Parts: sequence; structure tokens; C-alpha cells
Amino acid sequence: MDRRQAMEAVRTMLADKGADAIIIPSNDCHFGEYVPDYFKVRGWLSGFDGSAGTLVVTARKAALWTDSRYFIQAAKQLEGSDIQLMKLKVAGTPSVAGWLHSQNVSKVIVDGDLFSRQDFLSLGLELAPATLQAVEDPFREIWKGRPALETKPVRLMPENISGRSIADKCAAVAEKLSCNGPYACIISACDEIMWLCNIRGEDIEYNPVALSYCVLTEKGVHLFCHLDSLDPETRSYLESQNVALHEYGSFREFLRGLDPEVTRICKSSSINVNNWDAAFASVPAAEVGKRFKEDPVAGGSVAWLRSRKNPVELAGFRNAFINDGIAWVKLLRFIDENLQSGKLNEYLIAEKLKEFRNECPDYLGESFEPIVAWNANAASAHYSVTCEADAARIKPYGFLLMDTGAHYPYGTTDTTRTLMLSDRNDFTGRSDRLLQQMRDDYTLVLKGMIDLATAIFPAGTRGSQLDILARGPMYHTGKMYYHGTSHGIGHHLCVHEAPQIRMEESPLVIDEGMVLSDEPAIYIEGQYGIRTENVITVVPYTESEYGKFFKFDTMTLVPIDIRPVNFKLLSHKEEQWLYKYNEHVYETLKPFLSKQEAAWLWHKTTV
Amino acid sequence: MDRRQAMEAVRTMLADKGADAIIIPSNDCHFGEYVPDYFKVRGWLSGFDGSAGTLVVTARKAALWTDSRYFIQAAKQLEGSDIQLMKLKVAGTPSVAGWLHSQNVSKVIVDGDLFSRQDFLSLGLELAPATLQAVEDPFREIWKGRPALETKPVRLMPENISGRSIADKCAAVAEKLSCNGPYACIISACDEIMWLCNIRGEDIEYNPVALSYCVLTEKGVHLFCHLDSLDPETRSYLESQNVALHEYGSFREFLRGLDPEVTRICKSSSINVNNWDAAFASVPAAEVGKRFKEDPVAGGSVAWLRSRKNPVELAGFRNAFINDGIAWVKLLRFIDENLQSGKLNEYLIAEKLKEFRNECPDYLGESFEPIVAWNANAASAHYSVTCEADAARIKPYGFLLMDTGAHYPYGTTDTTRTLMLSDRNDFTGRSDRLLQQMRDDYTLVLKGMIDLATAIFPAGTRGSQLDILARGPMYHTGKMYYHGTSHGIGHHLCVHEAPQIRMEESPLVIDEGMVLSDEPAIYIEGQYGIRTENVITVVPYTESEYGKFFKFDTMTLVPIDIRPVNFKLLSHKEEQWLYKYNEHVYETLKPFLSKQEAAWLWHKTTV
Repeated sequence: MDRRQAMEAVRTMLADKGADAIIIPSNDCHFGEYVPDYFKVRGWLSGFDGSAGTLVVTARKAALWTDSRYFIQAAKQLEGSDIQLMKLKVAGTPSVAGWLHSQNVSKVIVDGDLFSRQDFLSLGLELAPATLQAVEDPFREIWKGRPALETKPVRLMPENISGRSIADKCAAVAEKLSCNGPYACIISACDEIMWLCNIRGEDIEYNPVALSYCVLTEKGVHLFCHLDSLDPETRSYLESQNVALHEYGSFREFLRGLDPEVTRICKSSSINVNNWDAAFASVPAAEVGKRFKEDPVAGGSVAWLRSRKNPVELAGFRNAFINDGIAWVKLLRFIDENLQSGKLNEYLIAEKLKEFRNECPDYLGESFEPIVAWNANAASAHYSVTCEADAARIKPYGFLLMDTGAHYPYGTTDTTRTLMLSDRNDFTGRSDRLLQQMRDDYTLVLKGMIDLATAIFPAGTRGSQLDILARGPMYHTGKMYYHGTSHGIGHHLCVHEAPQIRMEESPLVIDEGMVLSDEPAIYIEGQYGIRTENVITVVPYTESEYGKFFKFDTMTLVPIDIRPVNFKLLSHKEEQWLYKYNEHVYETLKPFLSKQEAAWLWHKTTV
Repeated sequence: MDRRQAMEAVRTMLADKGADAIIIPSNDCHFGEYVPDYFKVRGWLSGFDGSAGTLVVTARKAALWTDSRYFIQAAKQLEGSDIQLMKLKVAGTPSVAGWLHSQNVSKVIVDGDLFSRQDFLSLGLELAPATLQAVEDPFREIWKGRPALETKPVRLMPENISGRSIADKCAAVAEKLSCNGPYACIISACDEIMWLCNIRGEDIEYNPVALSYCVLTEKGVHLFCHLDSLDPETRSYLESQNVALHEYGSFREFLRGLDPEVTRICKSSSINVNNWDAAFASVPAAEVGKRFKEDPVAGGSVAWLRSRKNPVELAGFRNAFINDGIAWVKLLRFIDENLQSGKLNEYLIAEKLKEFRNECPDYLGESFEPIVAWNANAASAHYSVTCEADAARIKPYGFLLMDTGAHYPYGTTDTTRTLMLSDRNDFTGRSDRLLQQMRDDYTLVLKGMIDLATAIFPAGTRGSQLDILARGPMYHTGKMYYHGTSHGIGHHLCVHEAPQIRMEESPLVIDEGMVLSDEPAIYIEGQYGIRTENVITVVPYTESEYGKFFKFDTMTLVPIDIRPVNFKLLSHKEEQWLYKYNEHVYETLKPFLSKQEAAWLWHKTTV
């Protein structure tokens, strides 16, 4: 079934349903960051397989909206189709609703599994006077050869690793929900469910989650997953914690059967509209408002509680960073020793790190697609090479940026290091001036990373208040980066979770026990990219009449390349921090390294 | 008419209106920071004359809510009355609505002049099922001996000082309002009206504003003020700019006469509910939503435009800071030379500064009640002495905090300096350890002030993102201050205006031409208070592929006391900034000082 046939089938379906258009987003019904192949309808229909894009199909036309990261890729992949490329944030590009208005549509449909209640409502307002209707998956019948939904084993996350029983977590969530009377808190995010139920899955690439839903009531937890995936041990633990087990496919039916009197609690930004409709099926229309309560915690009660790691989780993280630090040191030594051979390439380095990580029996896999990017490649956002043929051969000059992370049963890592492959001019083939700029940029990124890592702040501080500490140093050169400074990191869970430290305001406060990345960067298009990323955790600093104050403690244990540093740009404190950090890495990892490795690390971390 | 009689009259009025309670706030009908005596109903009725407090009177009881600044004063002033003191933010204190519920009231009234539409709506929700009704000023008849509403002359702010014609400003506002079709933008804030109409008044203490309202339409401006207050020159300028003049008292009638079809634009947080009702009197209830548009700019279009000062205004500010700097230098020398005499007190110093300011013929008066506070007095928020008898005699040890500002026709100033009266131990009568803490606190405040003043930031940065630059240094000692870091300053207008730099989020961005205070502080109860405040303005720094970047330029010209500085806590850059700043003050002011004054200043600013 080729793209043309698929498009024809969709148009026939539209005609059958009396609809003029369908909007197809990128996400799945759980709104996670990664999407199982089963849900990649947009890719199947358009040929465009980037991570972000919205396809709209009418009876005669089709258009695909994507952002600047994907302009080139999308144009290439849409070639030979009748799909028009719509470049987001480019002047003159209409919005999806604006374009549909210009097509004079009067009825638009969407797969109600793929739109949150919130987005569905706002899209409906934008599309008026055209009507918007949510339908059950309209592709089920017409997509021939659709990939199956994979259902892999679900593992138990024992309490000696998770640090807290399910019952205990549920009680904490219930307290946050502060609902009088019977309630049903509907949770759609798979990673929240994994945390709450002390389990992990492997249904989604890089994300140790099982496709699942969950309903928390005042009486206990209902977990919806593929029951065959549970081994006896997991099943018996779940049952011992009062978790009622249901088949994944029975979730909507369960929602339809909810008592009309029960208060439905959820985030309207994360429940899909088909589930919403099912949850309120038994409630008279006039009483829906009365029976619905938005999750009272910004970002959601479960996500908030999960973000503040307990001491057992934190100990696991520290262990994970030791394992990962050992592998990184081996990799850095490998690069150092093979740089002149002419045989290094980006793909090989990523593979080599996997190999070194594999030496640790606890290693479970990468936490995201690794980025190994040499010079100009590192300036492209989300660069990654999936095969050796596409990888750049690395010559001994310029910057090599490596951003990779790993899962261990007790923690997830995420580390970026940028190496200056030679500090000698004659290797670079570049002007002295450019070399100086490269050193300065490297130093400003490092300075920002250190300034955030050494911040002290009172309880109640939000991420947006801290962001400037990481960005401030580079502002003096008129430079910026367009991504966030920091994201929360899951405990053997998704590498991206709440909260964030970024320019945009968010009401979430940075609180004790949170584990966050710290990753300022500078990208010079066509030349190089620099990013230095450590993972930091929030610990108590002091308590005074003004309340609690926090500081960060750095968890990552990978040496930072000091060769490119322009020490004139560092304050005395920053310089001290840098030396102490590398020394700490050496002292912590030394017991786990061979004599040769330790000697190499000593040499690299001592001046 | 004493307090008891007044209370009886209010209760009779309540009975007449069939109401169970009345809520009396502190503000007037324009919601400005200062309130003319005419509106001080709460003070008249309760005896409590602090700036913040809400009085609630029922048929049998009365209660007054105020915040911690006023707990002691209110308790004293309420003595002998039956009014219960309600301490805000103290555990167990009920809210106004909560308390009224406990009194079983069923009908509550307020003076609809004194509640914004927004506050009235939310109060109504809180009070339900009791009803809330807005009435016309219920005190007009019963308050015998009520102070008159003063109507003082209105002056023209010529375009060579304001830098922009009324027509030009109106066009800029109209663009922000972006309203298709006929509209009436209702402006209630007197300072916004002064800016828009290039006039100034003197109806409110410290604030050069005339009591006024304004309606901006697509055809021109309607100004409502006391017409007798306009001199012929002002009147003819206003008329030449297409400003239709109306009597202040005819405003509500004008609102009632608005065409039903016209779109009413306002901020629902700043239009009082009686004016709101009048403005929609001609609109059928079902169409109110259709005919109302919230001002599309957060904080209001006029306030936003006013906050970005034009080059003529900025030049005026610089001139004002020269005048003020001269007076300050004379004052600092006076203190220096009279410190040992034993004759200095807080009141005298404030008076002396007035005297020195008066030497400049352009000086128009203070921009707020001056704060001159010695040692422990400076730790009390909002300390001020209004007569010599209350003023502390100043001995030559510890800290003297002075926070004062002035109006000139072309600019408003606001400066705080803290002097260490002796740096010798034997004078302090305090331990070495305390003296070291005082020096460190002084230095951390200064460090924060410098760090904000030297910030670089991209266009689009909000105040909450910059705040940590001023607070960060003191966080290391677990210290904080509970006020904002910075407020906008009016151009010969109110000393407090938008925007702000503070911990709380606000969508207003810090933009070119804004004039802001920079005033971190440390207060140690019972011991001392330290605040150092400069005024800074936003100027271009650079423009790159990442857009525009801004920096601050410091306008204040008053030397900073370097004697208390612990230079170990300053970075090299901060130290350089400090010396350069004092040098700049000396060089700029020297031409305006006597030889003796200049010599004194040279000595104080040179190391």
C-alpha cells in the first residue's frame, strides 16, 4: 500500500463519515515524548517521519506543518506527494485552523485518542463556525500492514530500589488531590503510572514504560496494562498493594462504568478526548462541571510527587552515575588514544560507549538516541547518526560534542561533554581569531553551567527565576540557546520529565530531591556546537528566619575538558569549582578503574 | 462626631438599606497608591490610619483586617472601640468572606466606587450564598465634617519636556488596543491620564496628578477633570490636540450615554464597579460580553507605553539626577561634618535634604515620604518620622539609612543610601563579630545592586527572570528581603509604576527606555537595616542573530559609602564598577559644586 493509495483510503473514509477534513498530530494516546510505531499515522500517510508535524487532509488537498528543525527533511520526504509543506513560525504560514477556513470546510474530524481534552476544546473554538468532531481511531480499518502494538514484559521495581510502597505513594497523591467524597483520578501518562505502581516496562524505545492507564480512587488503584506481560512476582506484589489489575483494552469500558456521583479528577491537558467522553458518559451533561475537578497541582499531582526523589532513589542515581562515569572515562581515553589514527567516526564512538557501558552488568540500555557530533554537525539541533555510513570521520581538530545517557535499574543518566580535539593552532586549520572565539564560547558555556550548579535559592523558587544564571555569561557576547537550560530526569524512567529550568514561566517550584540536568550551550551554524551538561540534585543549604534555602549537588562523574578554557573569563570561585570537580571525579572513580585508566584520568584532571 | 457616633450612623444606614454588612477598603475610586483624605472612610470610622486595612461593619460587630506591618499600630488605634483586629497571614485569622459567613449575613454592600469590577466579581463568588451589592457612596450623607476633595491647579507638561504630543500617544495606544470598529477605552488611573494628556496636577500628596478620568475613542480623547483647574494655556493646548474637556463630575453620566454598539475597552482590575455599571447601562444584559474587551496588554496599554520613556523624558531624568545628586552630596557632607556634634537626628536630616534640594529652583517637592532611619529604626518597614520629637538622635555608630526622592518638572528621583557612621570598633559599642556581619551584609546588598545594574539580557526578558541577580549574593547567608527588587519610576509622575523586578511572575517584559529602581536590602530586626538603591534605565547593548540584547545604565549620581565594604566578597569586576561609579559621580557633579564640596566629594570617592 503506497502513500497515494493510503491517501485515497483516507479520503474515502472522510467521505463515508461526511467530513471535509481530518487533522493528524504526531503524538499517541498517552501524550508521551516517544511514540510507538503503531501510532505513526502521519508518517505512514505522508512519508515524513520527523518527531514533530501535523498533517491535515481534505477531500482535495493535504498539508503538513512542521518546525524549522525539519524544513529540509520534510521537503525531501514530501517530494512526489501532493502534500504542501507549511513552515511553522515563518511569515505568511497560515495556522491549521486558518488554512482550513480558507478551504471552506464545515466538518472536521480528529482521532479523539490523539487530542487532549484541552487541545480539542481550543481547536474547536479556532475552527468555529466549522464543527470539530472526535471519532474512534479512523485508521484501524484502512491502514493495511500497520505495525502491531508491542507488549513486552513488565518488571517489578522493588521497594529497595523505588524507596516507597505503592500504598504510600497513593496516600501522598490522595493528600495532594484533597478531594472530599468519592473520586476517580484518571492518569494517562505511562511514566507516571510506572512510578506510582513501582513497575517498569519496555514498550517504548528508550523509555522503560509499559503502555498503561491508571485510575486512583479513595479505595485503591486500578491498573490497566497487558496482563500477560506481568510475571507472577510482579502480579503478586501489585495485588499485595491493593492494585486491581485490568486488561489495557478494558480501560474505556471501565471509564464508561464510573459511578455518576464520583468526582473525576484529571489534567485536561493529558486526558484524551475519547477517554474524557467515556469518563463522563454516565454523567448528565448539565452536571459534568460539577463532577470534574482539574488536578489541583500544576503539572499534576503524580508528576509533582515523582519529581522529588526519595533518599533511596537518590542513592540509586549516584550509583548509576558511578557506572556511567566509568564507561565515559574509558571512552574519553579511547578517543584520546585513537584520535590520530584517522579511524574514529561519530557512529563508532557511540557504539564504543555502548560497549564500555555493557561492561557493567547492571546496564539496561540508552536513555535516548545518543548524539555524537563533530564540529558543524553539533550545531544542528537533534543531530544523530544511525549508521556508520552517515557518520562524519573525525579529524583531530575542532570540537566533538557527545550527549548520551543510560538506564540502570536504579537510575537514569544524561551527560554531555564537548572535547576540544586539539589545542594547537596548526591542527585546526582555522584562524587564531576563530580559535579564540571557540575557547571563549566553551568557557562561557562552562561558566553558565557552573553558575547554575552553585546557585543558592530559597524554597519557593521557580525554574524561570534560576535560568539566567546559566544564560547570563553568554549574554555578554550576544549569544543564546533556544532550548531549555534544564529538565527533570526520571528514576530509571523517561530522561525528560518535570520540572524544567527555562526562560518560560511555569508555576512548578524547584524543590528538595529533584534531579535536574544543567546544560547551557552555544551553537554556531556551520561551524561548531558546544554543550556541557551535568546532572544536579536539590539538597538543603540552610534554614533561617527567612525559611529553607537549597543548593545543588552535582551527580555526574565525567571529567570536564579544561584544555579549551579561557581562565580569564572564569572567576576565582568558578576556577576552583572546576578543579575540585575534576578532582572529585578522579577520587570517586579511581577505585573502579584499571591502573592505566586511573593514570590517564589523573593526567587529564590534574594541572 | 466621634468614632462611636460614626459607627452608629453607619449601622443606621445599613438598616435603611436592608443590608447586614458593609466592607470598606483603603483605596479610592482611581485605585492609586495614595488616597486623598476625602476617601479615608476606614480611618474616620475605625481610627486606624495605616495605609492598608479593610474594615467590615455588621449590625452588631466590626472587624479590621491588616498586615503585619500594622499589627502594633492598629491594636493601639483600635483601643476603646468594639472593632476586632484581624491579623492577615496569621494562622486562624478568617478571611473577610469567611468571617461574614460566620456572622450569618445574607446581604452585604460595598461602595461601588471603591471596588474594581474584577474584585467585586471574585468577592461576590466568595460571599455566596450571601448577596453582594454595589451602592453609590453611602457615606456622603452621614460623614459630618468630611474633608473636601481638593482641586488644585493643573499644569501643562510641554512637549519639549514630555517629548511626545497627545495625538501621537493616542495613536500609539490605539495601535495597542487593536480594536476594529468604534470603541471607548476607559482609563481610571490618574497617572496614566496625566501621561496621555501631557498634564500634571497636585491633588494627591507626593503624586503630581489631578483627579481625572479619561475615555479614548477612535475619534479622540475625552478628559474629565475639574475644569476650573486648567489655566488658559493648558486648556488651549488640550483643545489643539483634539481633547474634549468635561467636568470631573460628569464622567458617570458620559459613560451612561455611551452608544450601545461601541466596544468598551478597559482593565477590569482598574475600573470601579459603579463606573462599569454606568458604562454598560445602555447595553442589553445579553450583549455585555460582546461589547466588552479586556485591554489586550497585560497591565494596560497606556501603562505599558508610558513605561518605555522617550529620549526627551530620559534626558529630563538625567537632569533631575544631577540636581538631586548635588543636594545629596551637600547632605552627606553636612552629616559628615556634624556627626560628632550630637545634634543630628533623623527628622533634621530629612529637613536638611529638603533645604539643599530647594537650592535648585526647579525642585518641586518630594516624591514620597522620606525615610531617614538610624540603626534598628531602619529595620522596621516603612519607618518615617513626621516630627522632630519622634526622631532618633543619631550617635556616631552603626548604620544610617536614607531613602528619599524628589520631583523636578522633567523627572522624578528615588535614591537610598546607607552610611556606616563609623568604621572604628570603639565607636560601635558592638562586638567585632557583629561589626563584621554588618560589613558583610552591607557588601552583599551592594553586590546584588551591582549585579543587577550590570546585567545583560535579551529582548523579551521578564522582571522575574532578573530578580535573582540582586538577591543571589545574600542567599549564601540565608538572607532575603520581602519587598520587590525594583519598580518603574514615573517621569515627573508617581514614583511607583510598572514594571517591576520581583520574585513573583508578571508577563511584562523589561524593555528599552524603562526607568527602574534597583534596591536590594537586608533588615536585621532590632539592629539595623541596609538598602542601597540606584535608578537604572534600559539601553541597547548589542544585536545579534539571536535578536536585541539590553543592558542597564545607572542614572543616580550619589556616592556610595565604601567604608563598610568587605572587598573580599566583591569580584574584581564588582570592585571596578564601584570605584568607577563613585568616580563618575564626582566627575559629573564637580562642575556644580563649590570648591569645598568638590574637595570633600573627591576625598570620599577616591581611595
